[in-house]
Amino acid sequence: MLEIRGIAVSNGIAIANAYCLVEPDLSFEKLAITDVEAEKLRFQEIIIKTKIELETIREAAKKKFGHDKAEIFSAHILVLQDPEMLSAIEGQISAGVNAEFALQETATMFIGLFESMDNEYMQERAADIRDVAKRLLANLLAIELPDYSRLSKDVIIVAEDLTPSMTAQLDKTHVKGFVTNIGGRTSHSAILARTMEIPAVVGTKIATTDIPHGARLILDGSKGTVILDATEEIAAEYLVAQEALIAERELFQQFVTAESVSADGHPVELAGNIGKPEDVENVLANGGDGIGLFRTEFLYMDRQELPTEEEQFVAYKTVLVNMGNKPTVVRTLDIGGDKELPYLTLSHEMNPFLGLRAVRLCLDQQDIFRTQLRALLRASTYGNLKIMFPMIATLDEFRQAKSLLQEEQEKLLAEGIEVARDIEIGMMVEVPSAALIADLFAKEADFLSIGTNDLIQYTLAADRMNEKVSYLYQPFHPAILRLVKMVIDAAHANGKWVGMCGEMAGDEIAVPILLALGLDEFSMSASSILRTRGQISKLSKQEMAQHLERILTFSTSAEVEQYMEKLLNLNN
Amino acid sequence: MLEIRGIAVSNGIAIANAYCLVEPDLSFEKLAITDVEAEKLRFQEIIIKTKIELETIREAAKKKFGHDKAEIFSAHILVLQDPEMLSAIEGQISAGVNAEFALQETATMFIGLFESMDNEYMQERAADIRDVAKRLLANLLAIELPDYSRLSKDVIIVAEDLTPSMTAQLDKTHVKGFVTNIGGRTSHSAILARTMEIPAVVGTKIATTDIPHGARLILDGSKGTVILDATEEIAAEYLVAQEALIAERELFQQFVTAESVSADGHPVELAGNIGKPEDVENVLANGGDGIGLFRTEFLYMDRQELPTEEEQFVAYKTVLVNMGNKPTVVRTLDIGGDKELPYLTLSHEMNPFLGLRAVRLCLDQQDIFRTQLRALLRASTYGNLKIMFPMIATLDEFRQAKSLLQEEQEKLLAEGIEVARDIEIGMMVEVPSAALIADLFAKEADFLSIGTNDLIQYTLAADRMNEKVSYLYQPFHPAILRLVKMVIDAAHANGKWVGMCGEMAGDEIAVPILLALGLDEFSMSASSILRTRGQISKLSKQEMAQHLERILTFSTSAEVEQYMEKLLNLNN
Repeated sequence: MLEIRGIAVSNGIAIANAYCLVEPDLSFEKLAITDVEAEKLRFQEIIIKTKIELETIREAAKKKFGHDKAEIFSAHILVLQDPEMLSAIEGQISAGVNAEFALQETATMFIGLFESMDNEYMQERAADIRDVAKRLLANLLAIELPDYSRLSKDVIIVAEDLTPSMTAQLDKTHVKGFVTNIGGRTSHSAILARTMEIPAVVGTKIATTDIPHGARLILDGSKGTVILDATEEIAAEYLVAQEALIAERELFQQFVTAESVSADGHPVELAGNIGKPEDVENVLANGGDGIGLFRTEFLYMDRQELPTEEEQFVAYKTVLVNMGNKPTVVRTLDIGGDKELPYLTLSHEMNPFLGLRAVRLCLDQQDIFRTQLRALLRASTYGNLKIMFPMIATLDEFRQAKSLLQEEQEKLLAEGIEVARDIEIGMMVEVPSAALIADLFAKEADFLSIGTNDLIQYTLAADRMNEKVSYLYQPFHPAILRLVKMVIDAAHANGKWVGMCGEMAGDEIAVPILLALGLDEFSMSASSILRTRGQISKLSKQEMAQHLERILTFSTSAEVEQYMEKLLNLNN
Repeated sequence: MLEIRGIAVSNGIAIANAYCLVEPDLSFEKLAITDVEAEKLRFQEIIIKTKIELETIREAAKKKFGHDKAEIFSAHILVLQDPEMLSAIEGQISAGVNAEFALQETATMFIGLFESMDNEYMQERAADIRDVAKRLLANLLAIELPDYSRLSKDVIIVAEDLTPSMTAQLDKTHVKGFVTNIGGRTSHSAILARTMEIPAVVGTKIATTDIPHGARLILDGSKGTVILDATEEIAAEYLVAQEALIAERELFQQFVTAESVSADGHPVELAGNIGKPEDVENVLANGGDGIGLFRTEFLYMDRQELPTEEEQFVAYKTVLVNMGNKPTVVRTLDIGGDKELPYLTLSHEMNPFLGLRAVRLCLDQQDIFRTQLRALLRASTYGNLKIMFPMIATLDEFRQAKSLLQEEQEKLLAEGIEVARDIEIGMMVEVPSAALIADLFAKEADFLSIGTNDLIQYTLAADRMNEKVSYLYQPFHPAILRLVKMVIDAAHANGKWVGMCGEMAGDEIAVPILLALGLDEFSMSASSILRTRGQISKLSKQEMAQHLERILTFSTSAEVEQYMEKLLNLNN
């Protein structure tokens, strides 16, 4: 038995045979070219051919995975259009070498440059260039890249790396998992694996050399391991674990129509986080009481220009209509230096997480913001809309955002367009300064929603995407618990409700603490709603309040976690 | 009269004639080269010649400005050794073009690439390449670059940009100020101007086109303006203002030997921040009661390998001996993703301010940390040493750092080496989580020192180097005042003292508030100590405590500032 360890990027257990992706031979000779113009022309034709190919793959990916995920192919198409790189290649052809050589030399230089920067984002750019260069080279050599879209039985894919184009071609019905040599938590394949809800392990370094084609594998996407030649005992254990996961999922079904209420009768709201209108279905199927976070970024991504007011109106209306009278909290645009929009001239920033993002950008580029606000206001009559602004750090920002909303509302009313009365206007509490003066905000906002992902990141000054400091992503750090308590107490003292829409809201260990702190709305990924409802139905808020007193005296995150783990095991 | 506006990067007023730096003509023809090897050889010789030239300039700069500032020439020398760029240039020469053309093409591409990244750091890298490429080109063309080191009378330099090599060549005795078309607060010339203590305005866009050589200029480095053809009235006003600045400086001299005590008899400690042993002189000349922050990074920068224990010991000992029995707080290494050390393989990070920096790096690379701790412990017997750890976010980190210190102390004692007894061990409070649990830290640390620059940056989630979000750098945000109060109260409740070593500690508006909050030690740049001592001598702590009650009810930074400005004017 051999256990290969990698990075766990997508949960679940897969048991199937290995399917090793083999790379085609793309070797070529360096040639001296005399007719430079003809060679350039050949290269330009291949660019066009490749672009069409990528557009086809992108459309297929859109259907399979949705707009967001197909966006990587837009990034690839942008690489094809990069003037720096094209002119470097053509410059080399001008010097009298064949296009294959010119392409490889230039791509290698750019890849080297990006990789030498040694940060995850730049490395992903290097991966994009590598993928595009490979496709270009294959086309120059008239070699067809293998097509993985027709598998005949269930497999676990084994590869050096899954390039986005490979991933998009894979036939989902038979792919039960991925294991790769390279990659990280935020690599394209990792994101796709999570979207496809199939387990995956990346960054094993040795998967392709140590796993033979056809070998029986057990892949544990939660632990980040792949087992080859499992002993019968281990294989049996994993079969049981896999069945338990399936059984657990079925068990939760009983809570679809249940109320969200604790064992001692304290009601809460269990809502879903969504990224696009289609996700509403999943929230309703999982019995969500509402939507606690509708991220509106999808409207702005994977496209060439800003979405119109009408497009946005249609999207918001669709969500509101489908949600009926259930509350739907829409977060206004949260985009910035770390997310690229080709049509917006956003500066690259040294520390994008501390930069011009979210409401800061919206207050800076008010036209964009006003369009979104108008679309929201127009859609407001179709359901139970609540609006919240992200990344609020000062009262001035909240007041400004609110007054822009009011201006647009007055304009619409003057135009004779109907707008819902009394739309609740709230804000995300995700910047430490906002949590620290939650008492002042609670006087002016209708509700507060704690965004724990960012709040933890800023309070501990640790980038949650940076694995080097991931040990500092501590939801149970006493400072975080104090801030959450501060926010909830401040809101309640002012008669306002508080939600939470970070990952913490659906965390098994956090839920009892949040219940005891008096959190009103828990918003999480749809797949966690039923488990959480089941958990809360067994918890007594009053009993947890007694534990809370103890928990608030602890000095470290570890103490809180140990206490809770012990408590939850006892309760089971 | 014409007023040109730019970015204020170095305070003060300069009145002198314009000296316009003219660029030499470095134009050339593209040539077809047949003897490619000879051309490569010519290029390689020029590389060597240029390297020697840069080394000479670097040595001169070291003498004029110190090690830190000469480091930019090390960066230039690194550009000369960049394998990516050299091979790209040689590749082009191989294709049969002259070295001048190959150089220009490649440099343009790299500059374009870095500039397109559009973040300040990358843009500075682009500026480095531009500067080096210009020097290389001049050498290839055998054109001598102008030498600005022999000026005969006082001038204000007017230039497109001051390249680091130009700046280093300037004769300081006659240069009274700078004004440039491009650049920002963190550009090399801005940093040099502040080190040279001469006023400077950058980023005017039009200085070189609108200012004729020899024109009389008034440069206001605090406002960021340059006045051309000033009216007699304005000229007279500026003369008065300039004299007032000089007079003020003299007035402060009376406080050199005075005690740091408020009008109602409350004593405080006014200390200096230093970056290297030589800075001690300036702190003592300005009557500093101690050193509140000795940044030890200088030992690690501008060199090719880690400093030895011995080198560090000598530096720390020098400072301690020169400070006599005055307290000297040394901060252990605060380096990370945003500062590069060529000999340390630090990853570039997506958000370096939220990355593996300071104590995080030291706990990760303990060998480096232990060497520093040993050097500090060995030096401890030579003065009044206190040690503090930067970027502490959790109790675990503080405990770990302290236990490593203890381990090294025990080892030294076992080796028979003397170590001072009862060295105070403290920590920086600059991560919000640390401020929020200051009560827990105050039980385990001997003192706390609030680092406001980072604390504000993280609490408001706004990169203080990013001009797009500079409006969020709010020292008087109620959240910051609450955190500072929380830290001071927690320390005092545990019988510990609290210092502050961010820019806020020497800020005229902040000082009265900090006095009222009970801050024990104010640490600032040496040049602010006397002004602050003068200010505190006129303030009644008790009276300010009454104002504080009012101030703590304000909701925004602006309200606090307005209140304080009014108050300070009344007091004058």
